Amino acid sequence: MTGLGSSCGTCKFLRRKCSNECVFAPYFCYDDAANYFAAVHKVFGASNVSKLLLHLPVHNRSDAIVTISYEALARIRDPVFGCVAHIFSLQQQVASLPEEIEVHINQMANHAVEIPSNGNLLAGKYPDDEMRFVSMDEIMNTLYFQDEQATTG
Amino acid sequence: MTGLGSSCGTCKFLRRKCSNECVFAPYFCYDDAANYFAAVHKVFGASNVSKLLLHLPVHNRSDAIVTISYEALARIRDPVFGCVAHIFSLQQQVASLPEEIEVHINQMANHAVEIPSNGNLLAGKYPDDEMRFVSMDEIMNTLYFQDEQATTG
Repeated sequence: MTGLGSSCGTCKFLRRKCSNECVFAPYFCYDDAANYFAAVHKVFGASNVSKLLLHLPVHNRSDAIVTISYEALARIRDPVFGCVAHIFSLQQQVASLPEEIEVHINQMANHAVEIPSNGNLLAGKYPDDEMRFVSMDEIMNTLYFQDEQATTG
Repeated sequence: MTGLGSSCGTCKFLRRKCSNECVFAPYFCYDDAANYFAAVHKVFGASNVSKLLLHLPVHNRSDAIVTISYEALARIRDPVFGCVAHIFSLQQQVASLPEEIEVHINQMANHAVEIPSNGNLLAGKYPDDEMRFVSMDEIMNTLYFQDEQATTG
């Protein structure tokens, strides 16, 4: 129950009465929550997510809902690979980065390339703001950002 | 239907008769398939996965089952973060690698460090065999390998 007479996004989507015991209410109480929950419901099912939440300590539930929502939205966007496309993309970056660095190192060794004043040849290549997503907006931004990158092969 | 009189792992788990039209049979026909399907069923639900498969071209279904199984097993192992823990871990590697490299570059610039004969200062640091997982065994190995690394904060 999110407020006097109002239902959480989950209960709105499921067209049911929201109660004080609603396990979803604390995490689906914002605008458009019903739309986000629709993805979670389609991919995981309300019952499965409810069971998972009830088996977690309350302080872990928010993280669980954020990561479940991320997986659900990724699977809606890419039904074949889901968020695993993001894992492949990151693994490729991790695997290819040393080779890119070797080019820089060899260039320095051969041509005595001057190190930038900030000492960081790769600054801006892998921005810190990709680091973690902690809100639904960031998840959506990450998904849209990944849209072109995480090709599904 | 995987053979005369035998049921696929899904139908064994669901204790139902397997038919020629079973959408799961081609992908859950190995030893222990019922155990793997149990994870998929617990996290996603058989009905949701069945619907997803039926909306995909046949040639995409194997990849979908592999990635869905990976997500399901990761969520069973880590109910809070699931496979998103792996994404965080990889993002941290991508973000921290340039800093590690800067140390090498600065060492070279300051002390004229000799480049190894293979020209690869980082060989073995990020093994290629982490690159992709394409079978259920590899998925399980990846998950066990990640067990210590992908801490859930």
